Amino acid sequence: MQSGRLSDSGPAEPGPRLRSLCGADQAAWASSLSEAEAEAGCFALAVAAVLPAGGSGERMGVPTPKQFCPILERPLISYTLQALERVCWIKDIVVAVTGENMEAMKGIIQRYQHKRISLVEAGVTRHRSIFNGLKALAEDQPNSRLSKPEVVIIHDAVRPFVEEDVLFQVVTAAKEYGASGAIRPLVSTVISPSTEGCLDYSLERARHRASEMPQAFLFDVIYEAYRQCSDHDLEFGTECLHLALKYCHIKAKLVEGSPDLWKVTYKRDLYAAESIIKERISQQICVVMDTKEDEEHVGHRLEEMLKNELNHMKKVTSGKDLQQILLEQCYSFVCVNVMTSDFEETHKLLNMLEESNLSILYPVVVISVHFLDYKSVPFGQTMENLMPIREFAKEVKKRNILLYGLLIYYPQDEQKLKESLRQGATIIAALIKERNSGLTGQLLIA
Amino acid sequence: MQSGRLSDSGPAEPGPRLRSLCGADQAAWASSLSEAEAEAGCFALAVAAVLPAGGSGERMGVPTPKQFCPILERPLISYTLQALERVCWIKDIVVAVTGENMEAMKGIIQRYQHKRISLVEAGVTRHRSIFNGLKALAEDQPNSRLSKPEVVIIHDAVRPFVEEDVLFQVVTAAKEYGASGAIRPLVSTVISPSTEGCLDYSLERARHRASEMPQAFLFDVIYEAYRQCSDHDLEFGTECLHLALKYCHIKAKLVEGSPDLWKVTYKRDLYAAESIIKERISQQICVVMDTKEDEEHVGHRLEEMLKNELNHMKKVTSGKDLQQILLEQCYSFVCVNVMTSDFEETHKLLNMLEESNLSILYPVVVISVHFLDYKSVPFGQTMENLMPIREFAKEVKKRNILLYGLLIYYPQDEQKLKESLRQGATIIAALIKERNSGLTGQLLIA
Repeated sequence: MQSGRLSDSGPAEPGPRLRSLCGADQAAWASSLSEAEAEAGCFALAVAAVLPAGGSGERMGVPTPKQFCPILERPLISYTLQALERVCWIKDIVVAVTGENMEAMKGIIQRYQHKRISLVEAGVTRHRSIFNGLKALAEDQPNSRLSKPEVVIIHDAVRPFVEEDVLFQVVTAAKEYGASGAIRPLVSTVISPSTEGCLDYSLERARHRASEMPQAFLFDVIYEAYRQCSDHDLEFGTECLHLALKYCHIKAKLVEGSPDLWKVTYKRDLYAAESIIKERISQQICVVMDTKEDEEHVGHRLEEMLKNELNHMKKVTSGKDLQQILLEQCYSFVCVNVMTSDFEETHKLLNMLEESNLSILYPVVVISVHFLDYKSVPFGQTMENLMPIREFAKEVKKRNILLYGLLIYYPQDEQKLKESLRQGATIIAALIKERNSGLTGQLLIA
Repeated sequence: MQSGRLSDSGPAEPGPRLRSLCGADQAAWASSLSEAEAEAGCFALAVAAVLPAGGSGERMGVPTPKQFCPILERPLISYTLQALERVCWIKDIVVAVTGENMEAMKGIIQRYQHKRISLVEAGVTRHRSIFNGLKALAEDQPNSRLSKPEVVIIHDAVRPFVEEDVLFQVVTAAKEYGASGAIRPLVSTVISPSTEGCLDYSLERARHRASEMPQAFLFDVIYEAYRQCSDHDLEFGTECLHLALKYCHIKAKLVEGSPDLWKVTYKRDLYAAESIIKERISQQICVVMDTKEDEEHVGHRLEEMLKNELNHMKKVTSGKDLQQILLEQCYSFVCVNVMTSDFEETHKLLNMLEESNLSILYPVVVISVHFLDYKSVPFGQTMENLMPIREFAKEVKKRNILLYGLLIYYPQDEQKLKESLRQGATIIAALIKERNSGLTGQLLIA
C-alpha cells in the first residue's frame, strides 16, 4: 500500500459550505443519533471511506479518465476528496487508483493539500478496486497503517457534490441495517431487449429506482461479502448492495438522495459540474473599501446597487473584517479604490489573499473598482494611470487569482450616475459568474 | 385544435449543422432506403412528429416548466423544434401544450420563425398529451387540417439535441417493425425497493437499457394502441413502446442512440445544454478584413495565430464571400479594421448581419479588432476614438448581436508583436466561447 498522507498543516477546511455540520449544527438534525452522541457534537462511530478511482473514462470520449478531467483547472477527483474530507467524522479515505495514475494522484493530494488520504492500487474492475480498498482497512492485513472502521462508506470519485447529510444518513442506516445506499427516481423507463434487439418487456418506472452512491456498510458485512464473492461477481458486477444481499443476506436500507448525487459520466456532465461550481463560489460577494471614507462615497452606492440588483447572489458583505471573510471562504471580491489612479485597497487585498491560501482550491476573482470624474481628469490620462493593472494581474494569476479592473464613470447628473453604477454592477456580475481567465488584467468601463 | 402555422418565409434552414442531410448527403448513408428513394434525395414516407410539452417541470425546482426555460435567452423547446424542422422529410410537427401556455407557445413560434408546427391542447398526463397529438393527425377527426402520416415520430420537447440520423433510423425501423425506439446503456444499476424501503432485488445492468426518445410508430399501430388502452395506462404509464406491445403485440425495434439524446430534467441539465450550444456555435470563426489590403498586414498574422492556437475551434474562414458564410451559419466574427480609429469593416459586417436575420436563433459575436502603434498615436487618444463602439454595441444588442472591441498593441519588436497577437487570440477565444452579454461594448486590450 502506498501512502499519500500529508501533515495537517494547510488552509482552513475548504469548501463552499461555510461550516461543517460537526458540532452544534449537527445535533439539530441528527435525530437518529443518541442524545449523548449528539451532545458530544461528534460521531462516536469509527467511519472510513473507500473511493474506487481506477476507471478509464471511455464514455466521456476523451483520453483522460473522467476522475482526472479538470474543472476550473482542478481535477474532478479533488472536488470529491474535498467533499469527503470536510466531514470531520470520516477518519480515513482510501482511494484506489491504477499504477499508471499513482504519481499523478500523489501530485493532486500534495497540490490541493488533501488530508486523511491513503492510496491503494486499483484492480481491473470497480469491484476489485473496492476490495483492494477494503483490504487496506482490514486488520488482518500486514503493514496496514489504517485501523479497521466499524462502518465503511463506498463512494464514487466522480460524484463530487455529495453532502454531509446524505453521508450521515447512509452511515447511521448501515449501523442499524448492516448496509445502506442512496437511491434516486428513474429518469427514463428501463426496458429489457430481446436477443434480436427488440423490446422484450419494460419495467414499471414507479416501482424501480436508480441505485446511486454513497453507500455504507458495517465493515465486517461488506468485507465478508467481497471475500466470499465469485470471480464472476468481481468481473461483471456493478452493485455493492447486491453483494451484501447475496453473500450476507443483508437487505440494505435505501435512502432518498438529492439530484446532486449524480455521476459525472459524459462530457456534458463536466460542463454541468463546472457551472454548478462556478455558481456556488459566486453566491457570496465581498465588497472591500476603506471604512474611514465618507459615508456618502459613491462606493457605498455601488454596494447598495449590488445588493439590490444581483438577487441571484446570496450575500454581499462589506469587507469590515477581511480575515473573518477569508475564513468564511468567499471567492469573489469587489475592491473599491477611492482615488481614481490608486490601487491601495486592491494591493492590501491581494496581499491578504496571497497569504491566506484561499485560491488553492478555487480561482478567486478580484475586481479593482475606480471612479472617473470625466471633467476633472482627462479620460486618456486615467486609462494610462490604470494600465499597471495588467502587470499585477499577470503576477497574481500565477496564484489562481483573477484580477480585473473596472472604471466607473462618475457624472454630476444623478440619472447618469445611476446608469453608470447599474452597468458597473452588471459587469461585476458577469466577471464573477464567468471567472474567465482569458480576460484578466483588462480594464472595463461602465 | 389551435394552429400556430406560419408562412414559409423566413431565414434559411437554421441550425448548427451546416447542411441538412436532405439531398445527396443522405444517399451516402441511407443504405436502408430503396435506391429510388435515395436517388430522389428525399424520403417517400409521409412522416409527422408529436411533441408532448405539457409538463410542469417540478424536478427542475423552478417555477417555469422546463421546456420553456431559457438557454441563451431562447426557450428550450425552440431548440427542439429547430432540430425537428431542419429535417425536411418531417411534414408536420404537432406540439401539445397546456391551455395556460398556449399563447406563450404561439409567441415562441412567431418569434423564432418556426415552421410546420400545429398546436394542440395537452392532457393532464404525458400519454394523454401524446394521444391528443395523434388525434389531430388522424383522418377521422373533424376540422383537422393535417393529413394522416404513415409513420409518426414521438419525441420529447426537452431533448433538444436529436440528430437527423437517429430520427431516420427509428422511422425506417418503424416502417419495418411497426415500432421503434432509441435506447442507451444504463448509467446506474436499477433496483427494486421493498415496501419497507429496503433493497428487494437489483437488476443486472448489462441486461437492461434506458428507453429514450425519439420513438417512431406506424401511425395505425400507435393510434390503435392509444384508442384501446385503459385509463390506468393513460394516467400512470410512461412508455409508448409498452402500449404498442400490450395492445398491438408489436415488439419495437430498439436502436442505439447517442449520448446527445439525454433529457433535460434537472437544473444541471440546463447548464450542460447551454455549454453544449455555446460550444457548437463557437466552433467556426470567420475573420473578415478588406482583401484589397496588403498581404503583409498584421491582420493576416492574427488570422494565422487564430488558426494555429485555437485548435478547439473547427474552422477559421477568411471572410472573402460573406454572404456564403452567413448562409453557412457562422455565429462568430472577427472583424479587422485597418485604420486604428476606423469602424468601416465592422459597420459593413453589422449591416449584413442585421439584414441576414442570422441572430434570430443564436447570439452572434462580433469582435471589432483595431491595431495600435503606440509610438505614432497617443494611447489615450486612440481609446477615445474607439469609444463610439459602446453606442454601436448598445444598438446591435437589441438584435442579439454581441459586439466587443479589441485593441491590439503593435510594437516594432517582433517578439512583443507575437505576444500581443497571441494575447489577442486568447481574448477572442474567451469572448467567443463565453458570449457574455454583460461585457458588450467593452474595449479590450492585447
